[in-house]
Amino acid sequence: MNDSLLPRVDDLLAAAARIAPHAHVTPVLQSQALDQMTGARLAFKAEHLQRGGAFKFRGACNAVWALSEDVAARGVVTHSSGNHGAALALAARTRGITCHVVVPEGAVATKLANIERHGATLWRCAPSIAAREALCAQVQADTGATLVHPYADRQVMAGQGTAALELLHSHGPFDLLVVPVGGGGLAAGTQLAIQAAAPQARLILAEPAGAADTARSLAAGSLQLDFTPDTICDGLRGTLGTPNFALLHGQAEVITVDDAATVQAMRLIWQVLKQVVEPSSAIALAAILAEPARFAGQRVGVVLSGGNVDLGALPWGRA
Amino acid sequence: MNDSLLPRVDDLLAAAARIAPHAHVTPVLQSQALDQMTGARLAFKAEHLQRGGAFKFRGACNAVWALSEDVAARGVVTHSSGNHGAALALAARTRGITCHVVVPEGAVATKLANIERHGATLWRCAPSIAAREALCAQVQADTGATLVHPYADRQVMAGQGTAALELLHSHGPFDLLVVPVGGGGLAAGTQLAIQAAAPQARLILAEPAGAADTARSLAAGSLQLDFTPDTICDGLRGTLGTPNFALLHGQAEVITVDDAATVQAMRLIWQVLKQVVEPSSAIALAAILAEPARFAGQRVGVVLSGGNVDLGALPWGRA
Repeated sequence: MNDSLLPRVDDLLAAAARIAPHAHVTPVLQSQALDQMTGARLAFKAEHLQRGGAFKFRGACNAVWALSEDVAARGVVTHSSGNHGAALALAARTRGITCHVVVPEGAVATKLANIERHGATLWRCAPSIAAREALCAQVQADTGATLVHPYADRQVMAGQGTAALELLHSHGPFDLLVVPVGGGGLAAGTQLAIQAAAPQARLILAEPAGAADTARSLAAGSLQLDFTPDTICDGLRGTLGTPNFALLHGQAEVITVDDAATVQAMRLIWQVLKQVVEPSSAIALAAILAEPARFAGQRVGVVLSGGNVDLGALPWGRA
Repeated sequence: MNDSLLPRVDDLLAAAARIAPHAHVTPVLQSQALDQMTGARLAFKAEHLQRGGAFKFRGACNAVWALSEDVAARGVVTHSSGNHGAALALAARTRGITCHVVVPEGAVATKLANIERHGATLWRCAPSIAAREALCAQVQADTGATLVHPYADRQVMAGQGTAALELLHSHGPFDLLVVPVGGGGLAAGTQLAIQAAAPQARLILAEPAGAADTARSLAAGSLQLDFTPDTICDGLRGTLGTPNFALLHGQAEVITVDDAATVQAMRLIWQVLKQVVEPSSAIALAAILAEPARFAGQRVGVVLSGGNVDLGALPWGRA
């Protein structure tokens, strides 16, 4: 692929400087109880406390502020009813520009309300990828807005990497970094952060067994996109992007985790760390608990990626 | 009452120094969304992130380390199946001394397991106050252990006050401090902190409508103990202690809150702050939301007192 689509270390460092006035430096949490349980030394980067409740604000904010003045003036557009849509809306507001978000009919009402609350314009389309891309292209053509893809975007990847970069600077050194993988924005950015600040550290990706395209793609050496996701981790249902694959191939290992283990890890984080994280975040701890021998005695950095969970639909019953 | 039972400002300052090697300096959380919702400037002292998951560790730790070497060697005892029992067990372990906890038959198994996990010896008795006090007295007589009352204890009150003291020092000045009230350990300690570091600030106590003895006692000018608690706030079912009353009378105001409002505030804290707090904590925000005119435009410090909640028995249904 065209190397100009791949972020480099200087993009990461530029992103860190660019988003500093807008993004939170999130806290890092540690727990003796979880260290005892895993035999590792764990440090959790609390991105669920980032603006918008997820690391996604970092990439969106970097993409928005990387635009030239005249391009930015025409606004930004994306298709995402999840954390990226809300993050882009919030980022656009920090620059005072328009944000368009294309969402499929039937998307969760609370998530849409959240995107609108941040001032974005919603565009509804039929729930198919073709309809989504067509409407997105039309909005681009009509308004001149710039498309900010949720993960297969150089500035988005660079922005996501700033979470791990902060973690490495504040609590390093680490032997291993563990992050969830869906489209691979956070994963690719974290690999970049390792390159920049901790070349001796290894990257481990936690992926739902019901959406394990990254595990298959990295094993096969080429993108394996033919699958239907089936997982509670709604942030990780997408397939690995092309530039994301290029950055991760040969660099990262994947641990696949079934949803039951993810829910158990999520409950543990709520109970022990007292933090409300979503399943797509908790999967990182689940991966560590699934392969204890791999983590025992290691210094492990974990990105808790987000905390936007529907409290009315918790995946555990009454005791 | 005997003034020697009442903590003074120098007890509070001594407590702060005494517990410093053992207790966490908990973070302070702020939220633009909650500020907009209330019109106030809120700062939440995150005592649910304290060791043991509640502010109770502060008082227990202060009481344990205030004992002379030879008295401490005979251990400590208390009757509490809740946060204080676990906190005292944890505090005793920091000094390497024995801890006895008298618990009623039928107490919640997970809470007892927690107390035992911290190394305390459990003593089971019939579920009446008389049986509890009798067994407690017998353990004291048999072992020479010192009784550490959950709230009507000078060193416990002084220790609990260190949470507000830290908050005042790190994020002051404040116009109002809001804390929950049950037996009054945190309330009395907070009043002491105001005396020490913010004499212009007013103390507001949040109390469940179903256990509103403090509201009645402060209004009547004498302890009103004749009531049967009926509230979801299990940490606030006790009645105001005698020294606690003496410290609070004429100093603090009470806002009573019904459980539905507390549950709503708890949900808000989980969703917006992403923090797992128990109902007995969330009641402080509920009090603020219940009387908006009293808090609008004010700088308000809030102690989030604890986060030990049974995730299997959440008070809201599936959406």
